[in-house]
Amino acid sequence: MGTSPLDRIRVVLVAPLYGGNVGSVCRAMANCGMSDLAVAAPADLDLNEARMMACHATHVLDGRSTFATLAEAVADCAAVMGTTARRGLYRQHARTPREWAGKALEAAESGSRVALVFGREDKGLTNEELALCTHIVQIPSDPRCPSLNLAQAVMVCCHEIFVASGTFEPQTEKSAEAPSALRERMFELWESALFEIGFMKEDKAQHMMLGLRRILSRGTLTEDDVKILMGIARQAKWAARNGGQPGPE
Amino acid sequence: MGTSPLDRIRVVLVAPLYGGNVGSVCRAMANCGMSDLAVAAPADLDLNEARMMACHATHVLDGRSTFATLAEAVADCAAVMGTTARRGLYRQHARTPREWAGKALEAAESGSRVALVFGREDKGLTNEELALCTHIVQIPSDPRCPSLNLAQAVMVCCHEIFVASGTFEPQTEKSAEAPSALRERMFELWESALFEIGFMKEDKAQHMMLGLRRILSRGTLTEDDVKILMGIARQAKWAARNGGQPGPE
Repeated sequence: MGTSPLDRIRVVLVAPLYGGNVGSVCRAMANCGMSDLAVAAPADLDLNEARMMACHATHVLDGRSTFATLAEAVADCAAVMGTTARRGLYRQHARTPREWAGKALEAAESGSRVALVFGREDKGLTNEELALCTHIVQIPSDPRCPSLNLAQAVMVCCHEIFVASGTFEPQTEKSAEAPSALRERMFELWESALFEIGFMKEDKAQHMMLGLRRILSRGTLTEDDVKILMGIARQAKWAARNGGQPGPE
Repeated sequence: MGTSPLDRIRVVLVAPLYGGNVGSVCRAMANCGMSDLAVAAPADLDLNEARMMACHATHVLDGRSTFATLAEAVADCAAVMGTTARRGLYRQHARTPREWAGKALEAAESGSRVALVFGREDKGLTNEELALCTHIVQIPSDPRCPSLNLAQAVMVCCHEIFVASGTFEPQTEKSAEAPSALRERMFELWESALFEIGFMKEDKAQHMMLGLRRILSRGTLTEDDVKILMGIARQAKWAARNGGQPGPE
């Protein structure tokens, strides 16, 4: 656990009002491999609601630390990244979560602690709180509806850092991309099958086969895909000779 | 409104259980400049809860269309992107939202409609529903806590498409980056000020000024920043000569 830079990313909520939001924040953090939650000056939170929304991430909720002020919650953090939806004084240097994600990871990888700071649901962070921040974050949003739900804002910031960390291993195709020789065997088989089932005659064959090549070259074809397509052609040939009776296995 | 490709991105919720989630989805969509919400086979949704969570995005909630099945909800969509947290049959070709975002926008820009499909809160999409999808999306998440809240999953997918669309105009510094000549005038002024206030002597000056250059070169300095720093140096010189009395204006 202690070796991932994600363990050194702290989410700090300033004076959150709703337990449900705090719970949703816990779940979003756990989705992104983070667990260090600090709450500064919380209201009287509904912890039942928080627990319900935290879902499988109650360990984040139970492990949270509580501070009287933001200054105390970030005292041991080198980079302090504060989020804002508004523009204006103190807020001109804002960058998007994607632009700061590398910076946050760089600091965390070097052993420093990094704080992501989120303000009140209704009023965000005060100018005094933003002054404590070394970096200002503005989440891209439509100017007609710029303000995100607190937990959604946390999700976007954590997602950007999680993706940038390269921790997530995407699923890979089990079957390799088919090489040209295998694809050509398939096209030969289809050509002869399309003759045998009476779909095309010699004079149209070249045109039709080019059309089929175009359709099947638009996306990646794996070896498994080619085997399925060859099986179809073989079976069509068999059926054409045997009058549509079920074939040998 | 009708000219943005974002208007041709439809979010489809299959059999959502909780009104609060549907409302949060509306807000997330509006944050990302989207408004086409379709609900397939909804449970008896708590619309008061939905309205509360939709916040300023009640127009998305009120404008939603309802269908009996997923097939009907996506009938007019060219690209159908289905989300899944599980792995297995039908789910091997999954890519991340960031990897598919370009594809979704490309289709939407060409005038096609694109569906982003999200399954039930508890069980996701069935294999039959996934079979209707042309693209499978898997949101990067920690394998120890892989399942996202429904509205969080929508937020991540919409955020990735919104960012890729280049719609968001990031805030730019009002003040340009300071050119070398202006920076050098500032360093000269600081050097003379640091002599005048007695902070350094000739033999240490070069070393100290290199340190100051290092500190002030670590980040970008705008013309406004340099003017502030020059003002400090000027005032320090004035104060050193006038015994700390308040200066002229």
